[in-house]
Amino acid sequence: MIYLDNAASAPVHPKALSAAMPFITENFANPSSAHTLGREARLAVIAAREQCAAAIGAQPEEIYFTSGGTESDNLAIFSALGFNDKHKIITTEIEHPAILNACKELQRRGLEVVRISPDSEGIVHAEDIAAVIDNNTALVSVMAANNEIGTIQPFAEIGELCRRTGVLFHTDAVQAVGNIPLDMRVLDVDMLSVSAHKIGGIKGAGLLYARKGTPISPMIFGGGQEMGMRSGTENVAAIAALGTAMTEVGRNIPEHRRRLSRLRDMLIEKLEKIPDSRLNGSHTDRLCSNVSFSFADIDSEALVMTLDLMGVCASTASACSAGKHHRSHVLAALGLDENRIDGALRLTLSDQNTEEEIVTAAGIITECVARQRSG
Amino acid sequence: MIYLDNAASAPVHPKALSAAMPFITENFANPSSAHTLGREARLAVIAAREQCAAAIGAQPEEIYFTSGGTESDNLAIFSALGFNDKHKIITTEIEHPAILNACKELQRRGLEVVRISPDSEGIVHAEDIAAVIDNNTALVSVMAANNEIGTIQPFAEIGELCRRTGVLFHTDAVQAVGNIPLDMRVLDVDMLSVSAHKIGGIKGAGLLYARKGTPISPMIFGGGQEMGMRSGTENVAAIAALGTAMTEVGRNIPEHRRRLSRLRDMLIEKLEKIPDSRLNGSHTDRLCSNVSFSFADIDSEALVMTLDLMGVCASTASACSAGKHHRSHVLAALGLDENRIDGALRLTLSDQNTEEEIVTAAGIITECVARQRSG
Repeated sequence: MIYLDNAASAPVHPKALSAAMPFITENFANPSSAHTLGREARLAVIAAREQCAAAIGAQPEEIYFTSGGTESDNLAIFSALGFNDKHKIITTEIEHPAILNACKELQRRGLEVVRISPDSEGIVHAEDIAAVIDNNTALVSVMAANNEIGTIQPFAEIGELCRRTGVLFHTDAVQAVGNIPLDMRVLDVDMLSVSAHKIGGIKGAGLLYARKGTPISPMIFGGGQEMGMRSGTENVAAIAALGTAMTEVGRNIPEHRRRLSRLRDMLIEKLEKIPDSRLNGSHTDRLCSNVSFSFADIDSEALVMTLDLMGVCASTASACSAGKHHRSHVLAALGLDENRIDGALRLTLSDQNTEEEIVTAAGIITECVARQRSG
Repeated sequence: MIYLDNAASAPVHPKALSAAMPFITENFANPSSAHTLGREARLAVIAAREQCAAAIGAQPEEIYFTSGGTESDNLAIFSALGFNDKHKIITTEIEHPAILNACKELQRRGLEVVRISPDSEGIVHAEDIAAVIDNNTALVSVMAANNEIGTIQPFAEIGELCRRTGVLFHTDAVQAVGNIPLDMRVLDVDMLSVSAHKIGGIKGAGLLYARKGTPISPMIFGGGQEMGMRSGTENVAAIAALGTAMTEVGRNIPEHRRRLSRLRDMLIEKLEKIPDSRLNGSHTDRLCSNVSFSFADIDSEALVMTLDLMGVCASTASACSAGKHHRSHVLAALGLDENRIDGALRLTLSDQNTEEEIVTAAGIITECVARQRSG
């Protein structure tokens, strides 16, 4: 099996698994318990918080553990309700549904939401945000890199703009972490979302980084865990795995990018040879892990099923929309016609993929596209 | 080590662990992915939903998976915001902080919250609820059994009252599941919360049962998982473990109660021999797993630490409050004086505890109390 759906969920890193297992098996205690087992669980959460902070140049008290990337995004967006009676949120048309649908809910509650369009490569330009940002703006939320087409946004520049204008800036870094260096000491980012299972952790944990002083508000109330910002017994195993995964993906990003970019470009080069095929997104400002193609006159849902039978795991636009048969809002925002949207295939890489896999997968995809077109 | 803190977090059931492990190791896929791995993950979620439903006499589509008991409680309580413009919530003084603090937030948003006092044994009487319930009441939330003192509430009777008056009824069954038979076909319960890690599952999953037609509203928005009521990639491993745990704890509740009640009563009998000791809660309407004692002139935080050194894991009032050194709101609501509140010790059992452990633990506790009093 050749797994090329890492943006949907990635294999668990062996070290992350080792970090998690003791807290699934022998130590099942509640980290709020005062006895030794409880204290050990609590120390694991503290250690993971330090690891996560260190990986992005943050302070441990700026890391809030959540149940995942979607909750982190929601925590950031809903916090905007409490930002000094400001009533406008600026985001983009190509955010993850966690951002888009949280914003839709805020709109229902009376806030104004402005959605910036990207250019045809999926890049959101800082000047388009500058044109609408004002004194009434509570928050700007622009993802660091897109989950469907891998476009890397000029989030550093957008952060600077927000800092200059005194507006809080959130970035969904679920796809960017580990692929792009993210240092909170140099970036003008107030809040940043991470999901564990996209970077080698296990499902059930994520984090929101919130710079000291950012007035976030809890969504889930109870025992007061996570400095009062996220109640509920901590998922110790998933948090421990997240801490380790953050350390591991942060260890050597340049080397990781070199290796994966080479595989990515090899795959792009081979798929470009398929007639009537086109890369979606940017050739240059692109995650090292993402390949998104559109094949004319192809039903990519059927293509994904055929590829699966041939041993290649892929997605159409994203995992979330794949199950539900509605058209990708990201590809639509790029201005793609229906034929190209319906023929979209996303292939996303991890460090576990090999050159041999890429060559084999490219061959299988080429064959399956030809077969569907002729059949 | 003798683990008597099962109400804080219980050991993982071997079958639940077996159900979870494949989705932590070999199958790390996203259940929304269309390929085989994704479909297998999706099928595991479907199977777990059926298991959970079967265990409480519900339909699968009435089960919404969440990240845990606290989130389930919040989902139920915040749904009240959308219940036909009714503005009153009735709950009790002795609920878990997840309910109390979610209600406090609703109060901040303008709803009226009425908190019913329990009697001196911790029982909330249906007639006290009947006295305040009215046409403006959106929701009544009364826990099935208390986490600190194990008192079983007359939730069936309270449910009937709510049904008669047309008010929705939620019960936090986090401590009750597995210890009390819960059949949604006969109980007048509209919503019910469960936490996985209290019943032999792993941390990171819980569920809200919501009877068909109950107008719950999502708190976390995004990809539309859980029938749109809880977005975010499903924690497949923890959900699979929850399904198995629900099946296991539901398998033979009468036998479980017989065995645990015997151990509980043995422990109570031995601790009652300690001078100036008193059982908190009810002798009769009590969870088979709960023993809560107060020892006069004892600092129970210090006692818990000493017991830990002697190999007994226990809590003061609850795990959540233990770490934070504030007085138990439950024991205060029972009318206990400070001396008895500060001297409270909670011992909570599971099927893994043995008679030998109970005898040994009782001896150690008796010795430690005597030693602290004399020292």
